[in-house]
Amino acid sequence: MEQECVFCKIIRGEAEAAVVYEDDKIIAFMDIAPASPGHLLVVTKEHYENIYEVPDDLLAYVVVMAKKIGMAARKALNADGLSFFQTNEKGGGQEIFHFHFHVIPRYKGVALKIANRKKISLEERKRYAEKIREALREFL
Amino acid sequence: MEQECVFCKIIRGEAEAAVVYEDDKIIAFMDIAPASPGHLLVVTKEHYENIYEVPDDLLAYVVVMAKKIGMAARKALNADGLSFFQTNEKGGGQEIFHFHFHVIPRYKGVALKIANRKKISLEERKRYAEKIREALREFL
Repeated sequence: MEQECVFCKIIRGEAEAAVVYEDDKIIAFMDIAPASPGHLLVVTKEHYENIYEVPDDLLAYVVVMAKKIGMAARKALNADGLSFFQTNEKGGGQEIFHFHFHVIPRYKGVALKIANRKKISLEERKRYAEKIREALREFL
Repeated sequence: MEQECVFCKIIRGEAEAAVVYEDDKIIAFMDIAPASPGHLLVVTKEHYENIYEVPDDLLAYVVVMAKKIGMAARKALNADGLSFFQTNEKGGGQEIFHFHFHVIPRYKGVALKIANRKKISLEERKRYAEKIREALREFL
Protein backbone atom coordinates (compact mmCIF):
# COMPACT_ATOMS: atom_id res chain seq x y z
CA MET A 1 0.00 0.00 0.00
CA GLU A 2 2.82 2.39 0.86
CA GLN A 3 4.24 1.75 -2.61
CA GLU A 4 1.12 3.28 -4.16
CA CYS A 5 0.29 5.90 -1.49
CA VAL A 6 0.59 9.39 -3.02
CA PHE A 7 1.73 10.93 0.27
CA CYS A 8 4.44 8.26 0.68
CA LYS A 9 5.54 9.09 -2.88
CA ILE A 10 5.82 12.78 -1.97
CA ILE A 11 7.81 11.87 1.16
CA ARG A 12 10.17 9.66 -0.89
CA GLY A 13 10.61 12.45 -3.45
CA GLU A 14 8.86 10.45 -6.19
CA ALA A 15 5.96 12.91 -6.57
CA GLU A 16 6.07 16.70 -6.57
CA ALA A 17 4.56 18.89 -3.89
CA ALA A 18 4.86 22.51 -2.75
CA VAL A 19 6.56 21.86 0.58
CA VAL A 20 6.34 24.40 3.40
CA TYR A 21 8.05 22.48 6.21
CA GLU A 22 9.77 19.15 6.71
CA ASP A 23 11.60 17.40 9.54
CA ASP A 24 12.20 13.77 10.51
CA LYS A 25 8.62 13.22 11.73
CA ILE A 26 6.34 15.31 9.49
CA ILE A 27 6.03 17.08 6.15
CA ALA A 28 3.68 20.00 5.37
CA PHE A 29 2.70 20.90 1.81
CA MET A 30 -0.04 22.75 -0.06
CA ASP A 31 -3.29 20.87 -0.77
CA ILE A 32 -3.63 20.30 -4.51
CA ALA A 33 -7.34 21.37 -4.47
CA PRO A 34 -7.71 23.99 -1.73
CA ALA A 35 -10.94 24.42 0.25
CA SER A 36 -9.73 28.00 0.78
CA PRO A 37 -6.61 29.85 -0.49
CA GLY A 38 -3.52 28.65 1.40
CA HIS A 39 -4.94 25.25 2.39
CA LEU A 40 -2.14 23.02 3.69
CA LEU A 41 -1.75 19.42 4.85
CA VAL A 42 0.44 18.28 7.71
CA VAL A 43 1.35 14.63 7.14
CA THR A 44 3.26 12.09 9.22
CA LYS A 45 6.34 10.70 7.43
CA GLU A 46 5.49 7.26 8.71
CA HIS A 47 2.49 5.75 6.90
CA TYR A 48 -0.44 5.51 9.32
CA GLU A 49 -3.82 4.91 7.74
CA ASN A 50 -5.71 7.22 10.10
CA ILE A 51 -5.69 8.94 13.50
CA TYR A 52 -6.55 5.69 15.29
CA GLU A 53 -3.12 4.32 14.40
CA VAL A 54 -1.00 7.41 15.13
CA PRO A 55 0.90 7.20 18.46
CA ASP A 56 -0.23 9.86 20.95
CA ASP A 57 3.13 11.66 21.14
CA LEU A 58 3.33 11.94 17.35
CA LEU A 59 -0.30 13.13 17.14
CA ALA A 60 0.51 15.81 19.72
CA TYR A 61 3.52 16.91 17.67
CA VAL A 62 1.47 17.07 14.45
CA VAL A 63 -1.14 19.31 16.03
CA VAL A 64 1.31 21.68 17.70
CA MET A 65 3.19 22.03 14.40
CA ALA A 66 -0.11 22.46 12.49
CA LYS A 67 -0.93 25.35 14.80
CA LYS A 68 2.43 27.05 14.14
CA ILE A 69 2.23 26.47 10.39
CA GLY A 70 -1.37 27.72 10.41
CA MET A 71 -0.41 30.88 12.25
CA ALA A 72 2.34 31.49 9.69
CA ALA A 73 -0.10 30.95 6.81
CA ARG A 74 -2.61 33.29 8.42
CA LYS A 75 0.02 36.00 8.67
CA ALA A 76 1.56 35.43 5.23
CA LEU A 77 -1.82 35.51 3.48
CA ASN A 78 -3.56 38.16 5.63
CA ALA A 79 -6.26 35.66 6.50
CA ASP A 80 -9.06 36.47 8.95
CA GLY A 81 -9.14 33.13 10.71
CA LEU A 82 -7.94 29.56 10.69
CA SER A 83 -9.70 26.20 10.61
CA PHE A 84 -8.34 22.71 11.17
CA PHE A 85 -9.96 19.55 9.89
CA GLN A 86 -9.10 15.88 10.09
CA THR A 87 -11.14 12.93 8.89
CA ASN A 88 -10.96 9.14 9.11
CA GLU A 89 -12.28 6.16 7.16
CA LYS A 90 -14.19 6.07 3.92
CA GLY A 91 -17.44 6.45 5.88
CA GLY A 92 -16.05 9.68 7.34
CA GLY A 93 -15.09 11.09 3.94
CA GLN A 94 -11.37 10.22 4.04
CA GLU A 95 -9.91 10.03 0.51
CA ILE A 96 -6.16 9.53 1.00
CA PHE A 97 -5.53 6.72 3.46
CA HIS A 98 -2.40 8.19 5.00
CA PHE A 99 -3.04 10.27 8.15
CA HIS A 100 -3.15 14.01 7.42
CA PHE A 101 -4.28 17.12 9.26
CA HIS A 102 -5.83 19.97 7.23
CA VAL A 103 -4.75 23.54 8.00
CA ILE A 104 -7.08 26.04 6.32
CA PRO A 105 -6.71 29.84 6.31
CA ARG A 106 -10.13 31.49 6.35
CA TYR A 107 -11.35 34.81 4.92
CA LYS A 108 -14.18 37.04 6.10
CA GLY A 109 -17.48 36.10 4.47
CA VAL A 110 -16.00 33.17 2.53
CA ALA A 111 -17.37 29.71 3.29
CA LEU A 112 -15.16 26.65 3.02
CA LYS A 113 -15.35 25.08 -0.42
CA ILE A 114 -15.99 21.43 0.40
CA ALA A 115 -17.51 20.03 -2.79
CA ASN A 116 -16.12 20.57 -6.30
CA ARG A 117 -12.73 21.77 -5.10
CA LYS A 118 -10.64 22.75 -8.11
CA LYS A 119 -7.01 21.69 -8.54
CA ILE A 120 -4.45 24.47 -8.78
CA SER A 121 -1.09 24.19 -10.53
CA LEU A 122 2.17 23.24 -8.85
CA GLU A 123 3.49 26.72 -9.74
CA GLU A 124 0.65 28.41 -7.90
CA ARG A 125 1.05 26.09 -4.92
CA LYS A 126 4.78 26.89 -4.83
CA ARG A 127 4.02 30.61 -4.66
CA TYR A 128 1.83 30.04 -1.60
CA ALA A 129 4.41 27.71 -0.06
CA GLU A 130 7.21 30.26 -0.42
CA LYS A 131 5.23 33.00 1.33
CA ILE A 132 4.22 30.71 4.18
CA ARG A 133 7.75 29.29 4.58
CA GLU A 134 9.11 32.80 5.07
CA ALA A 135 6.47 33.69 7.67
CA LEU A 136 7.00 30.40 9.48
CA ARG A 137 10.48 31.42 10.68
CA GLU A 138 9.00 33.56 13.44
CA PHE A 139 6.61 30.85 14.67
CA LEU A 140 9.11 27.99 15.06
CA MET B 1 -15.99 38.01 29.24
CA GLU B 2 -15.61 34.76 31.20
CA GLN B 3 -18.66 35.82 33.26
CA GLU B 4 -20.80 35.66 30.13
CA CYS B 5 -19.07 32.81 28.28
CA VAL B 6 -21.48 29.87 27.93
CA PHE B 7 -18.67 27.30 28.13
CA CYS B 8 -17.32 28.91 31.31
CA LYS B 9 -20.86 28.71 32.71
CA ILE B 10 -21.00 24.98 31.93
CA ILE B 11 -17.59 24.51 33.58
CA ARG B 12 -18.73 26.40 36.69
CA GLY B 13 -21.94 24.31 36.82
CA GLU B 14 -24.14 27.34 36.08
CA ALA B 15 -25.42 25.98 32.75
CA GLU B 16 -26.46 22.42 31.91
CA ALA B 17 -24.65 20.16 29.50
CA ALA B 18 -24.55 16.44 28.72
CA VAL B 19 -21.03 15.73 29.99
CA VAL B 20 -19.07 12.76 28.71
CA TYR B 21 -15.71 13.34 30.40
CA GLU B 22 -14.15 15.82 32.80
CA ASP B 23 -10.81 16.24 34.53
CA ASP B 24 -8.79 19.20 35.86
CA LYS B 25 -7.79 20.41 32.37
CA ILE B 26 -10.71 19.66 30.03
CA ILE B 27 -14.42 18.93 29.81
CA ALA B 28 -16.18 17.08 26.96
CA PHE B 29 -19.91 17.40 26.35
CA MET B 30 -22.44 16.92 23.57
CA ASP B 31 -22.85 19.73 21.03
CA ILE B 32 -26.30 21.29 21.42
CA ALA B 33 -26.87 21.33 17.62
CA PRO B 34 -25.01 18.33 16.18
CA ALA B 35 -23.52 18.34 12.68
CA SER B 36 -23.91 14.55 12.85
CA PRO B 37 -25.39 12.28 15.58
CA GLY B 38 -22.98 12.07 18.54
CA HIS B 39 -21.20 15.36 17.88
CA LEU B 40 -19.09 16.33 20.92
CA LEU B 41 -16.95 19.27 21.99
CA VAL B 42 -13.70 19.01 23.93
CA VAL B 43 -13.16 22.28 25.78
CA THR B 44 -10.30 23.58 27.94
CA LYS B 45 -11.38 24.46 31.49
CA GLU B 46 -9.26 27.57 31.34
CA HIS B 47 -10.82 30.25 29.13
CA TYR B 48 -8.67 30.70 26.01
CA GLU B 49 -10.28 32.59 23.18
CA ASN B 50 -8.83 30.40 20.43
CA ILE B 51 -6.07 27.96 19.49
CA TYR B 52 -3.49 30.76 19.19
CA GLU B 53 -3.68 31.29 22.96
CA VAL B 54 -3.68 27.66 24.10
CA PRO B 55 -0.29 26.49 25.45
CA ASP B 56 1.25 23.72 23.34
CA ASP B 57 1.21 21.07 26.07
CA LEU B 58 -2.49 21.69 26.78
CA LEU B 59 -3.31 21.65 23.05
CA ALA B 60 -1.53 18.30 22.75
CA TYR B 61 -3.56 16.95 25.68
CA VAL B 62 -6.85 18.17 24.17
CA VAL B 63 -6.18 16.43 20.88
CA VAL B 64 -5.04 13.14 22.37
CA MET B 65 -8.15 13.09 24.59
CA ALA B 66 -10.35 14.11 21.64
CA LYS B 67 -9.02 11.07 19.78
CA LYS B 68 -9.86 8.71 22.66
CA ILE B 69 -13.32 10.24 23.19
CA GLY B 70 -13.93 10.09 19.45
CA MET B 71 -12.98 6.42 19.29
CA ALA B 72 -15.37 5.73 22.16
CA ALA B 73 -18.18 7.63 20.41
CA ARG B 74 -17.50 5.77 17.17
CA LYS B 75 -17.80 2.45 18.98
CA ALA B 76 -20.81 3.39 21.13
CA LEU B 77 -22.77 4.71 18.14
CA ASN B 78 -21.63 2.20 15.50
CA ALA B 79 -20.31 5.09 13.40
CA ASP B 80 -18.41 4.50 10.13
CA GLY B 81 -15.78 7.19 10.63
CA LEU B 82 -14.70 10.16 12.66
CA SER B 83 -13.99 13.79 11.82
CA PHE B 84 -12.36 16.51 13.89
CA PHE B 85 -12.84 20.21 13.32
CA GLN B 86 -11.54 23.32 15.03
CA THR B 87 -12.02 26.93 13.99
CA ASN B 88 -10.74 30.33 15.08
CA GLU B 89 -11.88 33.95 14.85
CA LYS B 90 -15.12 35.37 13.55
CA GLY B 91 -13.61 35.46 10.05
CA GLY B 92 -13.00 31.71 10.36
CA GLY B 93 -16.56 30.97 11.44
CA GLN B 94 -15.93 30.71 15.20
CA GLU B 95 -19.12 31.34 17.19
CA ILE B 96 -18.22 30.63 20.83
CA PHE B 97 -15.03 32.44 21.74
CA HIS B 98 -13.71 29.83 24.13
CA PHE B 99 -11.34 27.31 22.53
CA HIS B 100 -13.09 24.04 21.59
CA PHE B 101 -12.30 21.03 19.46
CA HIS B 102 -15.16 19.31 17.59
CA VAL B 103 -15.34 15.49 17.61
CA ILE B 104 -17.84 14.27 15.03
CA PRO B 105 -18.88 10.64 14.44
CA ARG B 106 -19.60 10.06 10.76
CA TYR B 107 -21.98 7.67 8.99
CA LYS B 108 -21.71 6.11 5.54
CA GLY B 109 -23.28 8.30 2.86
CA VAL B 110 -24.19 11.08 5.31
CA ALA B 111 -22.58 14.50 4.74
CA LEU B 112 -21.80 16.78 7.66
CA LYS B 113 -24.68 19.14 8.37
CA ILE B 114 -22.94 22.51 8.57
CA ALA B 115 -25.72 25.02 7.94
CA ASN B 116 -29.13 24.98 9.69
CA ARG B 117 -28.03 22.64 12.45
CA LYS B 118 -31.02 21.88 14.69
CA LYS B 119 -30.82 21.96 18.47
CA ILE B 120 -31.62 18.72 20.25
CA SER B 121 -32.95 18.45 23.82
CA LEU B 122 -30.79 18.01 26.90
CA GLU B 123 -32.52 14.66 27.44
CA GLU B 124 -31.47 13.42 24.02
CA ARG B 125 -27.94 14.72 24.53
CA LYS B 126 -27.77 12.91 27.88
CA ARG B 127 -28.74 9.63 26.21
CA TYR B 128 -25.81 10.02 23.78
CA ALA B 129 -23.47 11.07 26.60
CA GLU B 130 -24.28 8.01 28.69
CA LYS B 131 -23.57 5.59 25.83
CA ILE B 132 -20.26 7.29 25.01
CA ARG B 133 -19.20 7.51 28.67
CA GLU B 134 -19.61 3.75 29.01
CA ALA B 135 -17.59 3.03 25.88
CA LEU B 136 -14.89 5.50 26.92
CA ARG B 137 -13.74 3.28 29.80
CA GLU B 138 -11.83 1.02 27.45
CA PHE B 139 -10.07 3.88 25.63
CA LEU B 140 -8.70 5.74 28.69
